[in-house]
Amino acid sequence: MSIHLNKTEQKISRELAKLKRKSGSHSPSFSTLKWLFPKLNIKLDCCFLSNPYATDLFLKFFDKDIIKGGKFRSLIEHYPSQNRAVSARVTRFFGVPYQYLFIGNGSTEIIQAIFHNFIGKKVLVPIPTFSPYLEFVKHSTAIHHQLEKINNYLLKPQKFLSDVHKHKPDAVVLINPNNPDGGYLKLSEVKDLLIGLKNIETVILDASFIDFAEKNPARTLRTLFKLVKTHPNLIVLKSLSKDLGIAGLRVGVAAMDPQRIDGLLANGYLWNISGLAEYVLDLQNDPHFRRQYEQSRRLIVKERDAFYRQLAKIKQIRVYPSKANFFLVELTDGTTAQDFMTRLLTTYGIYTRPCGDKVGLSGEFVRIASSRRAENDYVVNSIKKAFKNA
Amino acid sequence: MSIHLNKTEQKISRELAKLKRKSGSHSPSFSTLKWLFPKLNIKLDCCFLSNPYATDLFLKFFDKDIIKGGKFRSLIEHYPSQNRAVSARVTRFFGVPYQYLFIGNGSTEIIQAIFHNFIGKKVLVPIPTFSPYLEFVKHSTAIHHQLEKINNYLLKPQKFLSDVHKHKPDAVVLINPNNPDGGYLKLSEVKDLLIGLKNIETVILDASFIDFAEKNPARTLRTLFKLVKTHPNLIVLKSLSKDLGIAGLRVGVAAMDPQRIDGLLANGYLWNISGLAEYVLDLQNDPHFRRQYEQSRRLIVKERDAFYRQLAKIKQIRVYPSKANFFLVELTDGTTAQDFMTRLLTTYGIYTRPCGDKVGLSGEFVRIASSRRAENDYVVNSIKKAFKNA
Repeated sequence: MSIHLNKTEQKISRELAKLKRKSGSHSPSFSTLKWLFPKLNIKLDCCFLSNPYATDLFLKFFDKDIIKGGKFRSLIEHYPSQNRAVSARVTRFFGVPYQYLFIGNGSTEIIQAIFHNFIGKKVLVPIPTFSPYLEFVKHSTAIHHQLEKINNYLLKPQKFLSDVHKHKPDAVVLINPNNPDGGYLKLSEVKDLLIGLKNIETVILDASFIDFAEKNPARTLRTLFKLVKTHPNLIVLKSLSKDLGIAGLRVGVAAMDPQRIDGLLANGYLWNISGLAEYVLDLQNDPHFRRQYEQSRRLIVKERDAFYRQLAKIKQIRVYPSKANFFLVELTDGTTAQDFMTRLLTTYGIYTRPCGDKVGLSGEFVRIASSRRAENDYVVNSIKKAFKNA
Repeated sequence: MSIHLNKTEQKISRELAKLKRKSGSHSPSFSTLKWLFPKLNIKLDCCFLSNPYATDLFLKFFDKDIIKGGKFRSLIEHYPSQNRAVSARVTRFFGVPYQYLFIGNGSTEIIQAIFHNFIGKKVLVPIPTFSPYLEFVKHSTAIHHQLEKINNYLLKPQKFLSDVHKHKPDAVVLINPNNPDGGYLKLSEVKDLLIGLKNIETVILDASFIDFAEKNPARTLRTLFKLVKTHPNLIVLKSLSKDLGIAGLRVGVAAMDPQRIDGLLANGYLWNISGLAEYVLDLQNDPHFRRQYEQSRRLIVKERDAFYRQLAKIKQIRVYPSKANFFLVELTDGTTAQDFMTRLLTTYGIYTRPCGDKVGLSGEFVRIASSRRAENDYVVNSIKKAFKNA
């Protein structure tokens, strides 16, 4: 039997839906939710795509370098460095000269900067997608390239290119791994695609989840960033929130043609990251941090794979293969995504992401983030119980 | 005799000038400077406009609420709330419903948002000014309204309005108190000006330094914010960096017509402030914080006035009256601003802001921030010595 809500749950579900509408196409944040529903025992944020082991690690280094190092006041009190001053300090880590690097207040600021400045009249966006790619269009039009359910929503380069030739967009978007499904193209496939896209004015490649997909993601990212030198139409961007587990600090980075960066910095993006975000970037130069981060990354990838195997055993759902740290889960027993989300929240304190507002998905979907082993186990067991006690 | 640099100082001066060019029309940050000149004993950042007592206070509350309260990890790890969710929590403090409030990643992001979206073809900017008002114009043209030296660079409403009638701009900028001179128009004068500007599409009023100018600045700010309801062409913005001493956290706020905010949020500004900036805003609802902040504010204003009296006694300079927490200082003995800045930096470790790049100033000027008593005394004595040992 599929999940059906009782009266109390229905009321909460309506309040959640109302809150959701207010939040546009994004989930209300975990803190907003806790603030608005103080009576619910909300324990686990599975909307939230992160690496909690990296958060542990960040806090350890922050405590040592900043708190015990007596630098906290300075980070809080003074203006951060300007964009280029920060870029100049991370060129080796990112593999390109500072003129090619743009530092953003989270990757969403970077997407906004690109979309408000470089996408022309028409941008082709594979759907389902991360919603800012449909929303930040401003004076442009987003044309949808439907990723197909039959292919697990994985992008098929030839089909994509044929849509490119058909629509002749000024810009195209590639998210790799894609959000919300985690579908991933290998580096060689991306390189081939770039050849096919050489006449497109702007090619946006969002590699925010690459740390969960590659064996040596820092090297792969450097390779992608370096491609900007030979492909001036390419912009590669990456959030640092997900892999480093520091979404609250807002930091992202992009590689693009220096002329584009000159244009952005001439008109804005002054002091656009905080002192703490600046520390996040400096930390990438610390080999001790990077070595320990690598361990945390391998661990979270291993647990993601174990989570997949467990979810795949639950017969009321279909879990899509993912190279990111989350899974697109289809409810196949007649339960709606909203009811599933509400039941998990009210009964088990688990906040999942219903995908009813995601353009391009056909069916009832939720997105569930992978986390630590114990938390993943709790999610699996809660889902099983939710269906059992439906 | 005016100040002249020796060979070593000349070399440093050239490096500083080079660094300055790289930083556009802003001073290189204190941290960048320390990083690039590790051998100089740079002690005091007088470029930097802040209230260090408020920083002390912020750190005290942060330690209690966030560190000891066990909330630091959550601020770091999770996405912050969305713009409207934050706005909704500070409506009482700012005196207008959340629909009228826009939260910015520092006031510079707000200026950028306004300038990239609302200023039309022509914007009239009184000069000298805070340089983003000249730089963020993008596809618009900034027309200068020259503030007159004979009036201590204070804006004269009738002259301003006559320039408005002459140039017919789409938008006008008022910074009150103005940066870099600290000239201030009273609330009644601002209200009168708004009547004269009622046909201008967009009136931008930057009240970032109001806490140093008014007896009850929170009330005056609420009055200004409320004016937005009756003047839909008005946008009032305020940095929280200066008064609260937390520039590193990037937080600003603006009141404007709800339709404008809807437009901005439809296309961007998603998760644009950090978890720590969100805490800064929440803190304004804490009466204990506000009471102690008021003490810190009165103290810094008192010391600003004492600093003025001391500076005014130095015969080689002319200090302009200021209602902000900084002074525009003219060098009247033939010393150049660059030489003065370099000597103060190399010999006394004091970083001041030469104003050679400020459009609209005629003469050799530096801007010097006021700080605590001991620091102000050190600055006064160092300037005296610098001239004595010139």
